[in-house]
Amino acid sequence: MFLGLKLEMVFGQMGHFRWTQTYEEGGHYSVWIQMSEGPGETSCIHTVDKQPHSAYLPLLVAALLLAFIAALFVVAPYVYRRRCTSKFIKTVCCQSIQYSLDNDTPDACGAENSAAKSKPTRLRSLDTFRGFSLTVMVFVNYGGGGYWFFQHAPWNGLTVADLVMPWFVFIIGTSVVLALRSMQKRGLSQMQLLRKITWRTVVLLLLGFCFLNYSPRDGLLSWSWLRIPGVLQRLGFTYFVLSLLQTFWGQKEMPVKTYHWLNPVQDVVLYWPQWLIIILLETLWLCLTFLMPVPGCPTGYLGAGGIGDNGLYPNCTGGAAGYIDRWMFGDNMYRHPTCKIMYHTTEPFDPEGILGTINSIVMGFLGMQAGKIIICYKGANFHILCRFLVWAIFLGISAAILTKCTRDGGFIPVNKNLWSLSYVTCMGFFSFLLLGGMYFIIDVKGWWRGRPFIYPGMNSILVYVGHSLLGFYFPFSWEMRFLDSHWEWLFQSLWGTALFLLLWRPR
Amino acid sequence: MFLGLKLEMVFGQMGHFRWTQTYEEGGHYSVWIQMSEGPGETSCIHTVDKQPHSAYLPLLVAALLLAFIAALFVVAPYVYRRRCTSKFIKTVCCQSIQYSLDNDTPDACGAENSAAKSKPTRLRSLDTFRGFSLTVMVFVNYGGGGYWFFQHAPWNGLTVADLVMPWFVFIIGTSVVLALRSMQKRGLSQMQLLRKITWRTVVLLLLGFCFLNYSPRDGLLSWSWLRIPGVLQRLGFTYFVLSLLQTFWGQKEMPVKTYHWLNPVQDVVLYWPQWLIIILLETLWLCLTFLMPVPGCPTGYLGAGGIGDNGLYPNCTGGAAGYIDRWMFGDNMYRHPTCKIMYHTTEPFDPEGILGTINSIVMGFLGMQAGKIIICYKGANFHILCRFLVWAIFLGISAAILTKCTRDGGFIPVNKNLWSLSYVTCMGFFSFLLLGGMYFIIDVKGWWRGRPFIYPGMNSILVYVGHSLLGFYFPFSWEMRFLDSHWEWLFQSLWGTALFLLLWRPR
Repeated sequence: MFLGLKLEMVFGQMGHFRWTQTYEEGGHYSVWIQMSEGPGETSCIHTVDKQPHSAYLPLLVAALLLAFIAALFVVAPYVYRRRCTSKFIKTVCCQSIQYSLDNDTPDACGAENSAAKSKPTRLRSLDTFRGFSLTVMVFVNYGGGGYWFFQHAPWNGLTVADLVMPWFVFIIGTSVVLALRSMQKRGLSQMQLLRKITWRTVVLLLLGFCFLNYSPRDGLLSWSWLRIPGVLQRLGFTYFVLSLLQTFWGQKEMPVKTYHWLNPVQDVVLYWPQWLIIILLETLWLCLTFLMPVPGCPTGYLGAGGIGDNGLYPNCTGGAAGYIDRWMFGDNMYRHPTCKIMYHTTEPFDPEGILGTINSIVMGFLGMQAGKIIICYKGANFHILCRFLVWAIFLGISAAILTKCTRDGGFIPVNKNLWSLSYVTCMGFFSFLLLGGMYFIIDVKGWWRGRPFIYPGMNSILVYVGHSLLGFYFPFSWEMRFLDSHWEWLFQSLWGTALFLLLWRPR
Repeated sequence: MFLGLKLEMVFGQMGHFRWTQTYEEGGHYSVWIQMSEGPGETSCIHTVDKQPHSAYLPLLVAALLLAFIAALFVVAPYVYRRRCTSKFIKTVCCQSIQYSLDNDTPDACGAENSAAKSKPTRLRSLDTFRGFSLTVMVFVNYGGGGYWFFQHAPWNGLTVADLVMPWFVFIIGTSVVLALRSMQKRGLSQMQLLRKITWRTVVLLLLGFCFLNYSPRDGLLSWSWLRIPGVLQRLGFTYFVLSLLQTFWGQKEMPVKTYHWLNPVQDVVLYWPQWLIIILLETLWLCLTFLMPVPGCPTGYLGAGGIGDNGLYPNCTGGAAGYIDRWMFGDNMYRHPTCKIMYHTTEPFDPEGILGTINSIVMGFLGMQAGKIIICYKGANFHILCRFLVWAIFLGISAAILTKCTRDGGFIPVNKNLWSLSYVTCMGFFSFLLLGGMYFIIDVKGWWRGRPFIYPGMNSILVYVGHSLLGFYFPFSWEMRFLDSHWEWLFQSLWGTALFLLLWRPR
């Protein structure tokens, strides 16, 4: 977008120039250096041949438009409350929500709504959060209008695109707790639960492997290039581990609420075997990442390799994580990592690799914690929100310490490719805040019903797979003609996202 | 497969050779000609360097295997009739059919079952026929094991692949009659019918245009190459016209069955306005095809152009049909017609073009005739079957006359690209025979329940779109390694087809 340059050029004895200028997107700039015979007469002229276009104007217009539409939906019910004549207006303002108990999707939850109403059987804020993540995912998959912050960070760092998957993992964790509790209440045995969990995992793995790991663009599936890891594979595996944890060590009855010094932390203490396992897993991640020797690379290397780090470790992309994956999968992994262009890396690196999956489980466990809080303090919304806040603060501070509040300079930088520990704590911070906020607005206060996000949120796997398979067909997407500005691209991204949102409105 | 050669070579005065040999697939052959000084001593030796493989062996094995599986399914119920213990066997032998009234699919029919049972609400033979067509379509889409007769004819001629679409159109016609009658019985007004018909047509057109006319292989949709006609577009338009015909001129009450000289043909006479329109349409097709002057081409040209007809008319591919389409759609039509490779054509030609759609309507009208027969002679199965036979014979004779029983030498050759009149009559012949046969076996005698074809047949559009979108992903398809024989290809074609068949079994 912007390129701030500070240059100092020295031409022998003929003079030197120093200039500071901001070069903006789409502008054409020239610098004329005129050299004369006499010393000191050399001059330097800056011209702007073509004015840059305002890169952020499309974003502003889109934001205003979306705000206007949102406002319309807020105001419309008040205006038309007593004038529900036509079918359209009925749809807009008077439609009663249909509760869909799609417990058959792996991330469904038949949770108790703690707002003490009896009718709703789903935690609306969780569905809304899930739908919101999906919406952001679809939007960034369309390129997010071509803005860099809507695309993945090349290596370290955090962009909007990097937020989505951990949110989703967090939500899986929360859903697992609520769904398993609901199933347990319905009297399902541990064996039945195990069968359900395994079946869902297998479906997720197969869906990911067969339909999402490649597209017809790559031709028919061939062993020579097939990718084994993948997003749904990681989600499925994370779901599997979390579900096992919850099945074997999670079905605790809440103790009677008498005073006990452990009460304030009972939502943690009750599940100590789970915590033990998670701490062991995280220790494993830390040990493998920082202590495992990788041939030809410094131990504990976290960089992108390629021309990064002055080109000292070109084949070390991802350090231990990359090494383990390349050892396990050979060439059958992702070949176009986000670092490839900027760092000129040559090694394949899979952002959904094995080491990262450990931290994905930890992330999901944070989501489970949210679910446990909701169950444990059911009916005591103030308690729930306080606990969410405490967790958010704790995780936020951890992230700040781990990263020293810098992108590359901390102990463990925030990195989506590695799913580094700081990335997990940072995303845990966001997740607790967001879920807490939505819980307050949607389930506690009832100010918002979660529309339009709640609909895709209730059919998440279908929406995800559907988007992956159909999202690049017309009318969701088309070959763009005006790529020199963000207008068409942003419109396409928003249009495709909006269509997908609207597709899942209940009819 | 086979290449029979009769050669006569004359080498001046040195001798001449004459040989007749059959060259088979995969064989390597050499012909050695040894020339000596003296006349008459020149010799010619034939050798087979590599034995040809038996191209038809895979087909034979597959046929035996399928026959074995079919036999298993026939025998199993008898063996296990009183031993339905496990769930699997229940599924195989004791499952009761679930009747699905999916009147929402455009080709659904809520027809009366004329076997005088009251429970079944669908004509099982029609669903089975539809499912059978779909199955053949999926099989030939996978390349039909690489056999030429499972792939489309380059221009004139009829292969298995050419059978599918007219069958489908025929079934649409029959379904329209049965479905509209069922809706009329449920008391829907003409306006409601029109709305339903229009909606279904629009959905078909959009599905075809957006999802089936290209694949992600082609990249994002671009105006520069988008194809406007297409299979679903033609099916949709045909459905629309047939439904209009039936809505406005088809809702006749059957007269009381007293004797009248018109009785034997009342199923035709009652619908005379429809017949008038169809005859006018067919006249239009004949006039446009044979009388319309096409610049640079002989009037009434039916050839493929290119190097066909001794290369006299290279740009005349498809004669009037091609000309009209190119005039209407410009470049926005099919660019890889089946004639392209054999005839080296350069012009685009769309097998789902405008002129062909007229004959597609005529084909569908033949299907409507089948539906009318079923309604008109309800309960009189002998009558129905006789009439089917009469129509089949009539259409068969017409086709024989039009083609003079040759591929290229008749008045109008059988041609799937043009949907020529002889193609329509020939396919009408097949359709009446097949539907009649299935009607007899399934609905009259009850010897067969239509499985496994009936399940995809009840969800045809879903199956078709699903196959088009997902059919070339694993595990339906993969990159083949052994293309020098038919084994792997045939296995893949059968495997993909079987998976699709099984996907639609009711659970």
